[in-house]
Amino acid sequence: MNKKELTANILSKQSFLCVGLDSDIDKIPKHLLSYPDPVFEFNRQIIDATKDSSISYKINTAFYESRGTKGWDTMERTLHYIPKNILTIADAKRGDIGNTANHYARTFFQTLPFDAVTLSPYMGEDSIRPFLEFEGKWAILLGLTSNPGATDFQFIQTADGQKVYQEVIRKCATWGTVDNMMFVTGATRAELLKDLRAMIPNHFLLVPGVGAQGGSLEQTYEAAANDAIGMIINSSRDIIFADSTENFAEAARTRALAVQKQMAGLMSRITA
Amino acid sequence: MNKKELTANILSKQSFLCVGLDSDIDKIPKHLLSYPDPVFEFNRQIIDATKDSSISYKINTAFYESRGTKGWDTMERTLHYIPKNILTIADAKRGDIGNTANHYARTFFQTLPFDAVTLSPYMGEDSIRPFLEFEGKWAILLGLTSNPGATDFQFIQTADGQKVYQEVIRKCATWGTVDNMMFVTGATRAELLKDLRAMIPNHFLLVPGVGAQGGSLEQTYEAAANDAIGMIINSSRDIIFADSTENFAEAARTRALAVQKQMAGLMSRITA
Repeated sequence: MNKKELTANILSKQSFLCVGLDSDIDKIPKHLLSYPDPVFEFNRQIIDATKDSSISYKINTAFYESRGTKGWDTMERTLHYIPKNILTIADAKRGDIGNTANHYARTFFQTLPFDAVTLSPYMGEDSIRPFLEFEGKWAILLGLTSNPGATDFQFIQTADGQKVYQEVIRKCATWGTVDNMMFVTGATRAELLKDLRAMIPNHFLLVPGVGAQGGSLEQTYEAAANDAIGMIINSSRDIIFADSTENFAEAARTRALAVQKQMAGLMSRITA
Repeated sequence: MNKKELTANILSKQSFLCVGLDSDIDKIPKHLLSYPDPVFEFNRQIIDATKDSSISYKINTAFYESRGTKGWDTMERTLHYIPKNILTIADAKRGDIGNTANHYARTFFQTLPFDAVTLSPYMGEDSIRPFLEFEGKWAILLGLTSNPGATDFQFIQTADGQKVYQEVIRKCATWGTVDNMMFVTGATRAELLKDLRAMIPNHFLLVPGVGAQGGSLEQTYEAAANDAIGMIINSSRDIIFADSTENFAEAARTRALAVQKQMAGLMSRITA
């Protein structure tokens, strides 16, 4: 999926919501455990309930890998169940050198045909480059993350008077284009998003941390939306675990729809 | 496996060699492709041929993930085939926030019961902490890597007159102990290893980049060995792909034995 198609989806659905399928088998409703593949059944119902109000699904690989080959099988089935016009993101945060990076790119762009994969930039250009060579696919680089530990290294002051995350984002942006690279930028730090947006005015941002992690949707939008919206906001637990009974899918639908309506309201300020 | 056991293995085998099972199905000898699980058969013969001269095996997850569930199955079978007294490392370079990190820790310490896993520190303390809570297991953090892209961010000069990788290593070392944390330090930069060793005198170092990537075993040893040796040197392609015929396992045996003898010679300088 290219940038034009993604933007068209956002405008037509009046939504920039990504639903994060952090589908921990220990947290899904208990009645699903009698299904042959409980996590797939959970995901299937969540997707059916939220696909009209979201423009992306993000699969957090950790929750699948931790169940071994069974989990990888669930991940594959889930990926193929997601409608083709919705952006699929493997939240894998991989990062390794050239030859190994090639294999990770094959993993998430071919074996599992995701549209996008999240990557850690610590090892530098040759760990990212192989992902940029797939037409219509996206590398989503960790820039500024939303967790407490983000301050440990991302905020180190450099000799040039910058923070490390600023140098990371600025340099990474030179390796790809606005059509094959996005950045993860944490919404719990909305005050920093505005400066960051000035650095990369036209890149899509993937913003976790709205909802359970405490970020405000409105503040995030005000700080970082551009003329083409240019952002995808992820929500995981707040939507998929909105209810733990047999009513979970309807509860997720209601929650996702409420977020979508809020997004439509924000978008009308620019697109009106 | 704890530090004492690992050191005892190194002294008794007179080896600090880790064999990297970067077992790319496109590079293994063609006659193996008729086996039901060609990569497992390759690994089985490599392990049989090298287990007397090595003290660790490192499984690079990318080469297995790229084959989907089949690859994960091969990884699991390979892990269980490795003798129990040999340190097993998942070279996975994972790194994500607390809840997700918990799932990665379960993946590589429980579902796949490796002794150690490599981690990327970019997201900070809460992305590492969950791995340190498993008794007898190791977190191996990326410090200074051996690839060209290492200079992009690891070598950024900080306001404190340090390089980023130095601040990363110094801070990470405060989170764990010499019994549950190691660092990846690239051998292609032997001139820097000496300073780095002064910063963390007692931690084990995992050193890639000797062999195919051009590092010198002797220079690396001189720069970074401590009284208890304190290092594991990885070699992958040079050993496992030493020969592409039916003689591949014998060729790997010969190559690993040659490295072990060189290591024994170096060790005699300190342990004599």
